[in-house]
Amino acid sequence: MLLINTSLSKRDPNSFYLSGVDAEHGLLAVPAYGKPFLAVPGFEYERMRLVSRVGVVKLKKRSWKKQFGKKLGKSKVIGINKDMLSLREFSRIKKEFDKSRFKDFAKDLKMIRSVKTKEELQKIKKACRITDVILQRCIRKLKGFRSEKDVALYLETETRKHGCGLAFPPIVASGMHAGFPHHDPTSGKLLNGFCIIDFGVKYQGYCSDITRTVFLGRCSNRQMALYEKVLRVQTKAITLCKAGVRASDIFSFAEKELGKEFTHGLGHGIGVEIHEGPNLGPLSKEVLKDGMVFTVEPGVYSKKYGIRIEDDVYLVNGKCKVLTKTSKKLIIV
Amino acid sequence: MLLINTSLSKRDPNSFYLSGVDAEHGLLAVPAYGKPFLAVPGFEYERMRLVSRVGVVKLKKRSWKKQFGKKLGKSKVIGINKDMLSLREFSRIKKEFDKSRFKDFAKDLKMIRSVKTKEELQKIKKACRITDVILQRCIRKLKGFRSEKDVALYLETETRKHGCGLAFPPIVASGMHAGFPHHDPTSGKLLNGFCIIDFGVKYQGYCSDITRTVFLGRCSNRQMALYEKVLRVQTKAITLCKAGVRASDIFSFAEKELGKEFTHGLGHGIGVEIHEGPNLGPLSKEVLKDGMVFTVEPGVYSKKYGIRIEDDVYLVNGKCKVLTKTSKKLIIV
Repeated sequence: MLLINTSLSKRDPNSFYLSGVDAEHGLLAVPAYGKPFLAVPGFEYERMRLVSRVGVVKLKKRSWKKQFGKKLGKSKVIGINKDMLSLREFSRIKKEFDKSRFKDFAKDLKMIRSVKTKEELQKIKKACRITDVILQRCIRKLKGFRSEKDVALYLETETRKHGCGLAFPPIVASGMHAGFPHHDPTSGKLLNGFCIIDFGVKYQGYCSDITRTVFLGRCSNRQMALYEKVLRVQTKAITLCKAGVRASDIFSFAEKELGKEFTHGLGHGIGVEIHEGPNLGPLSKEVLKDGMVFTVEPGVYSKKYGIRIEDDVYLVNGKCKVLTKTSKKLIIV
Repeated sequence: MLLINTSLSKRDPNSFYLSGVDAEHGLLAVPAYGKPFLAVPGFEYERMRLVSRVGVVKLKKRSWKKQFGKKLGKSKVIGINKDMLSLREFSRIKKEFDKSRFKDFAKDLKMIRSVKTKEELQKIKKACRITDVILQRCIRKLKGFRSEKDVALYLETETRKHGCGLAFPPIVASGMHAGFPHHDPTSGKLLNGFCIIDFGVKYQGYCSDITRTVFLGRCSNRQMALYEKVLRVQTKAITLCKAGVRASDIFSFAEKELGKEFTHGLGHGIGVEIHEGPNLGPLSKEVLKDGMVFTVEPGVYSKKYGIRIEDDVYLVNGKCKVLTKTSKKLIIV
């Protein structure tokens, strides 16, 4: 039996992934033999029954072992997720199932989640389409916004109007702020220079993630050449993404081309979380596979400026298809 | 030395509480002697230096022990938070600091956080004022909304316009939906009967949390009496909140008055998290103290209806002051 989200007071993306509901108070059990089920406190029972893809039972006050012990069958092994399980929760599980052995399923869960089903891919595609529409409108209107916060608020409001949530708080970074890869939008006037807009929505629980860099003010030839360089690296990196290729090799290509100004990873999987497997970083041991959906987002950052270009891609029949369609030609506002 | 947020890829409210920044990638270290500091990856260094209340250093690639070991001084004890620390993170810490002993600081952190400083109280007060303004406007406009989702979107949009974030996704539950304490707003037409609106904002990182129940359609005498009963219990429960009183005793009072239809806890602390200490539930061992800020939110729930009334209160000079001011007279729309 695999136990997921045993804290009973926080959400676990793995639980959403497997049950279809984002149950804050639900423990998800996946017996080795038999069907998975969600165990929730009484006050959540009726609501969860209406929305869950798996069976729902009421959590009783007696011990978990007494309530679920039978589902273990003869097996003494309980699967846990060491990436999520806190020391506190593990103490409780160890006490409850004192005769069991515990096996870490974190890697397995990560691997399973990194390869998307058709239904998952459809949801991510839809999220990408909505993101493209909103971002393109935003860029067309960019002249009308006063501050980074105004741009971010527009993106957020449009997202809600499309019936989606945000995949993460939008990053809008103008002028020297673009030099901070994870800048928080400010309420001052938009600064001249490169302006990074990094934005994604959550559609039916699935994330998109796109970045475009536009230019505010007069763009010099040197600046244009720098943008073109990042774009060339991004386009080339995408063509390198194929089934069977090591994720770290694609990172290394980008790092070699962009040098020290490229200060973060090249990309990450997207799905029910905005960051999941595969990881396109220097230490990644993952090999790209059909069904994986991830970002390709090289960038350069200095104290004065920043440029990042990011698309979402997926692998099918060994090759890479791009899901985000917003033009990458440098727009000068 | 106390280590907080060692995962380097998730946010930890304790880190925000102590450093003033919500650093996803920051490890916070609080040496037993010397000042606390945030250790962040290179690409976050410049940004964090601008916003952090504590010193910031770059995380180096070498081991944490080599980088921070000196800060330990002669002490061999490393404080950890068992509520947050995952088994994976703990494996790393144990390996890095193989000569250390580990002590759980979860309870201490929880206790410290449950008693608010003046500055924290000011922020929560401001959050409550903004929440009152938005909720009162929303209730006045209620006739104009079609669905629960429309109401929730209004609350969210107004929150953003006030420069705040949401403390949690608003609950708008009409008709039989009000019977689910944590209902997710739907896009169907608002249903007649009691309608629960549970809503809170985050102002400078601090949460508010208020619930009002209004009535849509014609309200019978029986329904009015039921509402009055919950209101009586809520008002009385607030007068019982005094320094030195056991939190569980106040829960017991409400449970005795409302019986089986009262299916969740009576209240919870609010602060940098929407749920923190003290817990006003049956199993709580906490004793109320001056400086605590928490919700008082009795309710009744059945398959057909639900009623909940919730205020935020704080204790000063032993007594209870109410922070949320929206009228509790039943509004019939």
